[in-house]
Amino acid sequence: MEAFSDGVFAVAITLLVLQFTVPEVQSGRLFASLVGQWPNLATYAASFLTIGVMWVNHHTVLSHLKAVDRTIQFINLVLLLFVVLVPYPTALLGHYLQSRQDGAVSAAFYGSVMTCISIGFQALVRWSVNHPKLLNPGIDPDRIRAALPGYSIGLLVYAASIGLAFVSAWLVVAFYVAAAVYYAFNQLPSGAARVD
Amino acid sequence: MEAFSDGVFAVAITLLVLQFTVPEVQSGRLFASLVGQWPNLATYAASFLTIGVMWVNHHTVLSHLKAVDRTIQFINLVLLLFVVLVPYPTALLGHYLQSRQDGAVSAAFYGSVMTCISIGFQALVRWSVNHPKLLNPGIDPDRIRAALPGYSIGLLVYAASIGLAFVSAWLVVAFYVAAAVYYAFNQLPSGAARVD
Amino acid sequence: MEAFSDGVFAVAITLLVLQFTVPEVQSGRLFASLVGQWPNLATYAASFLTIGVMWVNHHTVLSHLKAVDRTIQFINLVLLLFVVLVPYPTALLGHYLQSRQDGAVSAAFYGSVMTCISIGFQALVRWSVNHPKLLNPGIDPDRIRAALPGYSIGLLVYAASIGLAFVSAWLVVAFYVAAAVYYAFNQLPSGAARVD
Amino acid sequence: MEAFSDGVFAVAITLLVLQFTVPEVQSGRLFASLVGQWPNLATYAASFLTIGVMWVNHHTVLSHLKAVDRTIQFINLVLLLFVVLVPYPTALLGHYLQSRQDGAVSAAFYGSVMTCISIGFQALVRWSVNHPKLLNPGIDPDRIRAALPGYSIGLLVYAASIGLAFVSAWLVVAFYVAAAVYYAFNQLPSGAARVD
Repeated sequence: MEAFSDGVFAVAITLLVLQFTVPEVQSGRLFASLVGQWPNLATYAASFLTIGVMWVNHHTVLSHLKAVDRTIQFINLVLLLFVVLVPYPTALLGHYLQSRQDGAVSAAFYGSVMTCISIGFQALVRWSVNHPKLLNPGIDPDRIRAALPGYSIGLLVYAASIGLAFVSAWLVVAFYVAAAVYYAFNQLPSGAARVD
Repeated sequence: MEAFSDGVFAVAITLLVLQFTVPEVQSGRLFASLVGQWPNLATYAASFLTIGVMWVNHHTVLSHLKAVDRTIQFINLVLLLFVVLVPYPTALLGHYLQSRQDGAVSAAFYGSVMTCISIGFQALVRWSVNHPKLLNPGIDPDRIRAALPGYSIGLLVYAASIGLAFVSAWLVVAFYVAAAVYYAFNQLPSGAARVD
Repeated sequence: MEAFSDGVFAVAITLLVLQFTVPEVQSGRLFASLVGQWPNLATYAASFLTIGVMWVNHHTVLSHLKAVDRTIQFINLVLLLFVVLVPYPTALLGHYLQSRQDGAVSAAFYGSVMTCISIGFQALVRWSVNHPKLLNPGIDPDRIRAALPGYSIGLLVYAASIGLAFVSAWLVVAFYVAAAVYYAFNQLPSGAARVD
Repeated sequence: MEAFSDGVFAVAITLLVLQFTVPEVQSGRLFASLVGQWPNLATYAASFLTIGVMWVNHHTVLSHLKAVDRTIQFINLVLLLFVVLVPYPTALLGHYLQSRQDGAVSAAFYGSVMTCISIGFQALVRWSVNHPKLLNPGIDPDRIRAALPGYSIGLLVYAASIGLAFVSAWLVVAFYVAAAVYYAFNQLPSGAARVD
């Protein structure tokens, strides 16, 4: 399951580049056209960092398991279904970021997909904690359980980003960049904490 | 062979997202346009879950083998040829799902590709069972043989989905989602059963 | 080097599906349009089987090496450069297969890329044989050397397929399907022979 | 981290082929049209060889580490963010290589992305050297440190290629092909040198 998940994450993160298409411009207008693509660059960075950090977390969660049951496999498959979808809302948001109403719709869709991934993570961790026979011998379920409220807060914050979309699509992009950087550096340092 | 197959499954499942293209809409019309893409979302989910479950099965079948011969390698290659093709009928069915006659054609094509994969699986398992020297020491060919009728039924049901296409393309999509969820949870629990 | 090569082969073979694009047809015309895509299906099968068999051979060659030097790495990189290119001549040949003059050009281009891969293989094997310190202890360079004439014939046959393009583009496609099936079943059975 | 990085490099290098699109030509005009695509072939080769050599270096750097901290992971993620972007400037440069002003813009963008990757490498190596507890026991930080000036020169040369773009876009392509071939054969032969 780990090799498959790693492969899917690696390909999904790489497909993000396909939102960039070579613009057909009149002679001498390429520089202005490239500058006009900076919304795409912003959503590209936001999604790349977010998927990258999610991948590290996913890897950490799986490394706590010594066995997988059918339910875990199914939860993981649904989680990956949303991870693989990410290049689409990323391209959509890059395209409509500067349009007022459609930018809000795009950003809300983007936040919704990210929230679904977050729900998938939550389900994966909760199922593992409640089935200690799946965990590696050295892992203490209670320590992971102590990290669960942090997870729930993360989920609530992600869900709140959907509402943020109707304030400003730009705020949503900035939020995901900030959240990825925050998670990259502020995960707790060891054991159960790394599940965070 | 296993590393190559895993890589191919991972990329094929990820390319499913490429059926989604950013719609060019008049200002304020994006939400309606996205809602109009739900046939694509339905075929995306059906194919993602189906390939995902097939991958688990494929992995299980390969884990029973301690060696591969040329025939097994060739069968596996033809099996992967159809797995890699899946993003195309998926995109086609997503596009024509709501068109009556063309929806039936798309759904029949979709069912045909899936049936070819199922035939490939059947061939892979039957060849393994009939060449016990390829099997891992702990594997009892008779137990796998006992699972073969279940396999044949699966193949017949998949083949029947081609006919179902001419009743309703939607039924075909619903059938594959249901079949994937069923297989994810109802594979027999151990040994030969997991080959199922 | 092996993990990287495997990954590149797996992705390159999967990108072959991108030559299929959903046709936009008038209502009820999809079936005819799909039937009209059979040149694409033919080139897809030819390239999929060819890359698949090349991958098995590549894996066998690398498994004979216990170390790699800079030259081997560079030869391998140039070999992969042509492998990754294959989806393009495949799509081109699928598109122009039924056009007389442009079909010949496409088929000659297709044969040229395949011949370049074959030259790369030849270089990889010859360099290994001439630097026995790179070979695994159990491998006898003389046995591999005995297989080299077979390799050279393979290269000549591939090169001849470029000329065949000007007779018929279809013959080129049929040739590559036949060559892939032949190589899949007629590689010599063991040791040095598997390098073949 | 290594498996993920390898996967990302493998997919990014393979997506380079997507810059080639089947031209729609009048009957008999395909050959001229393919010859007209040689700027794409040139940038394809330049990027393929450059990413290929970077991948070997990246692998060597990671193989010197026995552990990774959060900062290393984040630096690596940002490095990969630019590696994954490469297919876009490659396609852009292929498209505008023969246009004077837009060719310069494309080449400068291409050089900038490559320079960002080079900065990422520099950061990765410097951070490792300054945190010897991350290094494998057999690695002497001072030997790696001795290789750092060579790295800095490499970075300066890459940065200079941005300026070169305003002389000639072709020079930039030739520079990257030459640099890749040079690095492929002139890395120092062992230990710290291979970090180079």
